[in-house]
Amino acid sequence: MENPGDHLARMRETAPLVQNISNFVAMNLMANVLLAVGASPAMVHAREEAAEFAALAQALTVNIGTADPAWGAAMQDAAAAMNAAGRPWVFDPVGVSATRFRRDLSARLIALKPTAIRGNASEIRALAGLSGAARGVDAGDSVEAAMEAAQALARRTGGVVAVSGAVDYVTDGTRGCRVANGHPLMARVTAMGCSLNGVIAAFCACAPALEATAAALACYGLAGERAAQAAQGPGSFQPAFLDALAAQTPAALSAGAKVSAA
Amino acid sequence: MENPGDHLARMRETAPLVQNISNFVAMNLMANVLLAVGASPAMVHAREEAAEFAALAQALTVNIGTADPAWGAAMQDAAAAMNAAGRPWVFDPVGVSATRFRRDLSARLIALKPTAIRGNASEIRALAGLSGAARGVDAGDSVEAAMEAAQALARRTGGVVAVSGAVDYVTDGTRGCRVANGHPLMARVTAMGCSLNGVIAAFCACAPALEATAAALACYGLAGERAAQAAQGPGSFQPAFLDALAAQTPAALSAGAKVSAA
Amino acid sequence: MENPGDHLARMRETAPLVQNISNFVAMNLMANVLLAVGASPAMVHAREEAAEFAALAQALTVNIGTADPAWGAAMQDAAAAMNAAGRPWVFDPVGVSATRFRRDLSARLIALKPTAIRGNASEIRALAGLSGAARGVDAGDSVEAAMEAAQALARRTGGVVAVSGAVDYVTDGTRGCRVANGHPLMARVTAMGCSLNGVIAAFCACAPALEATAAALACYGLAGERAAQAAQGPGSFQPAFLDALAAQTPAALSAGAKVSAA
Repeated sequence: MENPGDHLARMRETAPLVQNISNFVAMNLMANVLLAVGASPAMVHAREEAAEFAALAQALTVNIGTADPAWGAAMQDAAAAMNAAGRPWVFDPVGVSATRFRRDLSARLIALKPTAIRGNASEIRALAGLSGAARGVDAGDSVEAAMEAAQALARRTGGVVAVSGAVDYVTDGTRGCRVANGHPLMARVTAMGCSLNGVIAAFCACAPALEATAAALACYGLAGERAAQAAQGPGSFQPAFLDALAAQTPAALSAGAKVSAA
Repeated sequence: MENPGDHLARMRETAPLVQNISNFVAMNLMANVLLAVGASPAMVHAREEAAEFAALAQALTVNIGTADPAWGAAMQDAAAAMNAAGRPWVFDPVGVSATRFRRDLSARLIALKPTAIRGNASEIRALAGLSGAARGVDAGDSVEAAMEAAQALARRTGGVVAVSGAVDYVTDGTRGCRVANGHPLMARVTAMGCSLNGVIAAFCACAPALEATAAALACYGLAGERAAQAAQGPGSFQPAFLDALAAQTPAALSAGAKVSAA
Repeated sequence: MENPGDHLARMRETAPLVQNISNFVAMNLMANVLLAVGASPAMVHAREEAAEFAALAQALTVNIGTADPAWGAAMQDAAAAMNAAGRPWVFDPVGVSATRFRRDLSARLIALKPTAIRGNASEIRALAGLSGAARGVDAGDSVEAAMEAAQALARRTGGVVAVSGAVDYVTDGTRGCRVANGHPLMARVTAMGCSLNGVIAAFCACAPALEATAAALACYGLAGERAAQAAQGPGSFQPAFLDALAAQTPAALSAGAKVSAA
């Protein structure tokens, strides 16, 4: 596996245009995260233009956090366009077990074979059809408890599945790795998970999905560690996190990344 | 009346899931405010899932700041679900006097008897059917001038009405109290009022509405006082406010709360 | 031409109510920018109330960043209402060349003769019907390369056109000026351009469009210069920018503005 810093350096050279059909809570932070890390964000979700815009984008993210039927249709249009172009797209099944609408939409999106899926343990288990214990968008399950579900889901979609937690787990259904970067304050700021999807998509635009996703998780978590040193609480953490993402060098990422086979 | 700090401690133990049908401007800050204070936020407003999600939530907030007819229908669905479950919901009539759409939607929401209504003096007067002088979402009237309207509105809905201002006024139509915490910088940051609704809802999920609302106002205002000491202006106030909310202890709240009968 | 500081002082005395049909990414920052600079923001875009609300507003901004057909209709309703009332409105053609939907909607909005149009060089060239090289919402063209397009567009609409870049260019089709304030960090934070539209609208509510737009650009760029001195990166830049906008005095603006004829 390449050094995580090499992935960051290549992504910054490419500065991929990442289209995001995200949720209303996350859009602003997600755009700032993508700018800070060195990618180019665009939030385009109207059905009248989502698939057309996808032809311009190097990667796509889809997040059902505040979806409705019209947005759901745009998500499917755009994901199909990325598949047709052979470009990566990342799916985040926010709160998938909470309502029938989310379950149905997620099933349709899974059928479109996302390049990467990222969620917390409860979401990944629910998505894999196992019994989850999701409550809102919080993670009720441990990452360990979702490993099998993640592997099964990855084999079913042919893509990569990442389970976010204190130590993240990433798998393509056969191989897997753990990423131990991060800080508890990251869970005290809304949209941190959603915004990570954009970074995964940007890295996946420049390298194979398993390695790229692991590098993106390490890059994000390491910036969180640095930001936590400067923060007084969840409020000051957010600007410090964007500063840390922007200031992170490839060398620092390779030195600080905690990625191990699993 | 219990100490405000006791309300905060109980709310944090419960960590209630608060569903918010809020506005686009406020969603991000509101979610961060709820996380910082110790509750669990979810922004769910699509009509296809709003009422179904309400069955999972311990409290609901409704805010008409950027509503449209579809959202208005979801608000009524979700409020009715909370009423059926005997759980609290908070209504914020943002800019109610500005357009016919807002007046009509607000009238339908009032008929669903919110547990708590929070607005500025002009909004509360307009809502009570008295003559207001609202201009956009600014408060043109004084809190004193809205006391009678607040009491009448509380008697009509059977709930609590809170009038935000330099000194807040809260009433259930019979009893009332004043909360003198806060800082002028709070009015220089958008969505501070909207986000307060979430804190009120979280406290109301754990205690009777009049006491809970007063405690929530004191908790919020005191965090604003602390944040203002650290801020250089409205920009640095916002992260400092979230830090102060997260750092606030029950003991500090009980010591710093300025709640008095009125 | 009056001193830029005189424009700022007059705007603050008036504190114009600025209605914004903006995009989801920008709404929160834009409202905070308008509050910080001394205006009064309102985000009102539902077709059921957009034109009715426009009757209360001193100025309007329209931004197609996340528009859909319903929002597009509300934009046209509200712009027509401002025209009928003789009040200014500002148009931002975000990513106009990216999709047919954006081109068609922009053509309809241009026909309604905006008081001011602001965009990057690629957007202004695309809008003027010249060949652009837009990629997402990034500026691929230089400001110099868009001067002729800006002049032609201004003559066609009878309004002012501002091209944002390292040095901004503003023209009414005959006269023109350059504004050299600003800092590269402003392009590393999302929604900084969108939020500037609100400041232009607020200044245009109080003075003729060419002078008012130049003063607004100088006010905004100078605050960016001050904020950059205090910032560690794009994250800490945003709160520092709002602080600098709020702290900026008319005298400091007149002293620091870099406006020259062009």
